[in-house]
Amino acid sequence: MKIKATFLDEISYDIPHQNWGVEEWDKDFQAMKAVGIDMVVLIRCGLRRQMTFPSEVLKREQSCFTPSTDLIQMFLDLAQKHDMKFFCGTYDFGISAIDPNYDPDAEAKVIKEVNDEIIERYSKHPAFSGWYLAQEIAGDGYRAADCYRDVAKRLKEKTNNLPIIISPFMRGSKVAGQITVDPKLHEEQWERILSKLQGLIDIIAFQDGHVQFEELPKFLKINKRLCDKYGMDCWTNAETFDRDMPIKFLPIKWDKLWWKLQAAESAGISNALTFEFSHFMSPNSCYHAAHGLYKRYQEYLASQKEEK
Amino acid sequence: MKIKATFLDEISYDIPHQNWGVEEWDKDFQAMKAVGIDMVVLIRCGLRRQMTFPSEVLKREQSCFTPSTDLIQMFLDLAQKHDMKFFCGTYDFGISAIDPNYDPDAEAKVIKEVNDEIIERYSKHPAFSGWYLAQEIAGDGYRAADCYRDVAKRLKEKTNNLPIIISPFMRGSKVAGQITVDPKLHEEQWERILSKLQGLIDIIAFQDGHVQFEELPKFLKINKRLCDKYGMDCWTNAETFDRDMPIKFLPIKWDKLWWKLQAAESAGISNALTFEFSHFMSPNSCYHAAHGLYKRYQEYLASQKEEK
Amino acid sequence: MKIKATFLDEISYDIPHQNWGVEEWDKDFQAMKAVGIDMVVLIRCGLRRQMTFPSEVLKREQSCFTPSTDLIQMFLDLAQKHDMKFFCGTYDFGISAIDPNYDPDAEAKVIKEVNDEIIERYSKHPAFSGWYLAQEIAGDGYRAADCYRDVAKRLKEKTNNLPIIISPFMRGSKVAGQITVDPKLHEEQWERILSKLQGLIDIIAFQDGHVQFEELPKFLKINKRLCDKYGMDCWTNAETFDRDMPIKFLPIKWDKLWWKLQAAESAGISNALTFEFSHFMSPNSCYHAAHGLYKRYQEYLASQKEEK
Repeated sequence: MKIKATFLDEISYDIPHQNWGVEEWDKDFQAMKAVGIDMVVLIRCGLRRQMTFPSEVLKREQSCFTPSTDLIQMFLDLAQKHDMKFFCGTYDFGISAIDPNYDPDAEAKVIKEVNDEIIERYSKHPAFSGWYLAQEIAGDGYRAADCYRDVAKRLKEKTNNLPIIISPFMRGSKVAGQITVDPKLHEEQWERILSKLQGLIDIIAFQDGHVQFEELPKFLKINKRLCDKYGMDCWTNAETFDRDMPIKFLPIKWDKLWWKLQAAESAGISNALTFEFSHFMSPNSCYHAAHGLYKRYQEYLASQKEEK
Repeated sequence: MKIKATFLDEISYDIPHQNWGVEEWDKDFQAMKAVGIDMVVLIRCGLRRQMTFPSEVLKREQSCFTPSTDLIQMFLDLAQKHDMKFFCGTYDFGISAIDPNYDPDAEAKVIKEVNDEIIERYSKHPAFSGWYLAQEIAGDGYRAADCYRDVAKRLKEKTNNLPIIISPFMRGSKVAGQITVDPKLHEEQWERILSKLQGLIDIIAFQDGHVQFEELPKFLKINKRLCDKYGMDCWTNAETFDRDMPIKFLPIKWDKLWWKLQAAESAGISNALTFEFSHFMSPNSCYHAAHGLYKRYQEYLASQKEEK
Repeated sequence: MKIKATFLDEISYDIPHQNWGVEEWDKDFQAMKAVGIDMVVLIRCGLRRQMTFPSEVLKREQSCFTPSTDLIQMFLDLAQKHDMKFFCGTYDFGISAIDPNYDPDAEAKVIKEVNDEIIERYSKHPAFSGWYLAQEIAGDGYRAADCYRDVAKRLKEKTNNLPIIISPFMRGSKVAGQITVDPKLHEEQWERILSKLQGLIDIIAFQDGHVQFEELPKFLKINKRLCDKYGMDCWTNAETFDRDMPIKFLPIKWDKLWWKLQAAESAGISNALTFEFSHFMSPNSCYHAAHGLYKRYQEYLASQKEEK
């Protein structure tokens, strides 16, 4: 059970920025590679008025501010340099799929236009390896499935069937102020969503942080069963930040990450994506507890090797 | 558009202390100077029971605790050493000007007494260059204008017309739990306040963090127009901490600071004060994201130079 | 007035983990020793589903997760290496003593069983020096006194009268959402509790962070008087994190710690335990403000020496 991929959390909803330039990122890609991460997933190419590249579409349609750096270009070049795969996140309106104002068609329209621009600008880059649909939903966010479907179909056609990832969340007891689902309802809701996405989504990596540790194996087994049924690859999004502490958010305690990786392994899952390396488990992170997490993870990798 | 000045946030309402001694401060003044900051503004000389120097008045009138270090003396000496100007903040009762219990006359009485003590102790120091009126108000805090007026008049008389700064805030949508003003009301409210302060306040640096980025140019233009009308120097208080994140507060994302500096420039403003260098953009900060912000700001300064 | 002891906050309710391994802990015990701390107190051996050693009792009774490291063994060995005393915290259900569901007998039953296991596994270790009763109560938590009594009696019998510590809190105005006690009520409540614990508890170290600084001397004098009356040793738990800031929690401002140590000294108290060294005042802490606090505390120790 290894962490194979990490999100790149530029632009973020809730994680403060590290203010890294290309040198700092270069060093961090190197640190990722050293522990076996060879895939980076840009979490979104834009959010509300912010964007990661100077998009003409987003300037015109969403009045986005011009960024100081073209981050997609920078991440693609660094991925190539370090022999890693780059997956590109789509634009995010910042409206929840259970919000009455959520309009999947309006969202899909802009996302597709931005994707076309990304395809034109970057898709020929040797490191460009796939897509990530940025909207994060739980099982009650089924209305987003139409948007996913619409966007994914066009991506499959226009970029030669490149793989597409989603990373939903489970409505466990750690979702603030929300109704908790039981495993049965979780399974019904996702049955309904995944049946619409067959052949369009390649990898699903459910976020592992919202359910209690003791309930995790149960939920992960459901996820695996559903993915198998619909021909999708079931990963886990092994979150490396701690959801149980008053400071939202700092690096997770190693033991908690270890329990979650064990739970995924016991459910038959063999790959993990993480949110995310650079703040929460990097030796370069502004949070020093991440340096410790990196060391503990290295020790874990060494012990895994010995076992074999 | 350059950051010329920074607050020194000892004593703070909401920013945890770095526990620096004179050596750490010395190093930090050097880092300020290296990026063109040559003015430091002590944000307040005392707050409720805390004070920055062993004031007899504050011990007697406010039962303040004795500080372990005379910070005013230390900052003056360091300012002189690094060829910088020191501005002294007044005492702060910690009562908002819109609180029904707020009493501008009672506040002014104590503040003036403390200022007299400061004048006697420190005003002959070569680095002593001006004053900062510590109470932070928005346009609805007009009752504080009487206190400002009363205090400023006496300072002008007793310290030979040394410059006086204020740094109010704009009641934008990022003020927690408050009614947001529109630009028109903002202008009316500040017209009323500034008309009372003509000839007494030299520099106004509105805090730039409470309005949405897209609304900032509009508000900054109003501020500039009003300052021009009343013969005051219009600066911006370019906040270097991020108001959009759940952790209150960590360093701002460089792009956001850059957008705000651009907005100020487009409004005809040419100087910025910041809250504040030592936590949020210093290479010595306990928050490592500040180290990155310092580097990005250095790159910005270098690029500005090239443009000319 | 010196800090003689520190808690080890593994496992924590609210302080994010540093992800240290044995090397990092070794270095930190060395830093403790260098400023005169020669006693470490494990804050709890388990909390809800987490535990610090592979306890058969806790696996069976509380379905606890297996930890990656036997922390009790590691801390005992490090304590021995650095010539320090180790005090072992009991198991914590995580239920407040004022919660209607709190059951002192049910709690005592499990705690005693776990303690028996600890005694068997670790009590012969040369560094094993005493016990800490983990449940934290205020004066209204008198129902826990029965649990304390029951547990302490058995510990006294089975481990040859080793010293036992408790560290309650005072219901001051900094306890979130709670009714504040006045000194008189505080004294009455603790009179009632301590009268039940005579001969069983050796050291009481009240947490010093919940009452306003100006009220602290008054409360500490009451604590000292009560401890003297019941033949217990009165320490202070000099908290080294700041309760006044929006980020919960970062290192305290040195001046605040200094005022609290002075208040304890003036009440006739001569020893302090702290919560806790490794996050909040260690030169190895992930929070850099702790490095400053360590330096300021070293300067304080040097100045104390000079005074004598």
